Amino acid sequence: MKYWEDIKVGDRGELGRYTVTEEEILAFAKKYDPQPFHLDREAAKRSIFGGLIASGWHSCAIMMRMSVEHMRREQLAGVGSPGIDSCRWLKPVRPGDTVTVRTEITESWPSKSKPIGFIRRRADMLNQHGEVVVTIIGVGMFQRRDAAAGGAA
Amino acid sequence: MKYWEDIKVGDRGELGRYTVTEEEILAFAKKYDPQPFHLDREAAKRSIFGGLIASGWHSCAIMMRMSVEHMRREQLAGVGSPGIDSCRWLKPVRPGDTVTVRTEITESWPSKSKPIGFIRRRADMLNQHGEVVVTIIGVGMFQRRDAAAGGAA
Repeated sequence: MKYWEDIKVGDRGELGRYTVTEEEILAFAKKYDPQPFHLDREAAKRSIFGGLIASGWHSCAIMMRMSVEHMRREQLAGVGSPGIDSCRWLKPVRPGDTVTVRTEITESWPSKSKPIGFIRRRADMLNQHGEVVVTIIGVGMFQRRDAAAGGAA
Repeated sequence: MKYWEDIKVGDRGELGRYTVTEEEILAFAKKYDPQPFHLDREAAKRSIFGGLIASGWHSCAIMMRMSVEHMRREQLAGVGSPGIDSCRWLKPVRPGDTVTVRTEITESWPSKSKPIGFIRRRADMLNQHGEVVVTIIGVGMFQRRDAAAGGAA
């Protein structure tokens, strides 16, 4: 297992790849963001986006999925997140796009009251053309090794 | 139709109600956030959360759904969002919780290059106990009436 102490400021990562299908874009939009440019191919063509695009929240959810798979591969003891500091949907994610996510740890500090530590991370989602489509600066919580090893919680 | 000009700084709203089922929490987690405390009732009991909780991104997606339904009821000409400035997952959303969202417009400015306007909005999601569970400060884009009426785009 890797703990908060194993994550260092400056660490960079790449979170694999994910291809976003039209079917998935429509399914997410139908349930959570039923705006015409996410849900209706013809209406989307007439919108300012010129075609169907994924909900921004869908892009965020995909980034989360990629992060969880990364944490599993790396055996990182993640315990959730208090929130995000900024999210920018810079370019549309369209049906058939294959995205990857590049991350960098920018800050790290221990909790004063709980057996966990926090990290701040910048995560850029890029499409197959190398364009950054989403940037998120968020905070993650991880178990601390000192606590896991039997220290007082 | 209501346009950007119809949305005023200081406007407050309430976006209806939404009950979050365990089934929906598990379905979202399975697809986008398969961490044990979102996906596995028994593992969640042993986690720091003491039981199953919704993914934070799921709470955001639900807030989006409630916002889209509000825009429809109010006939607001929304055209997406460039991003959010802050999101804090303050308390867990648990199976069976019924949430509502209270909003306040805090800023408004026109685009210099496109026939749209921007608003900044604070949105607090509250549970049935009146506790704020999620706070988002985000930016929305709306069509401008002057442009919709035939002004140059």
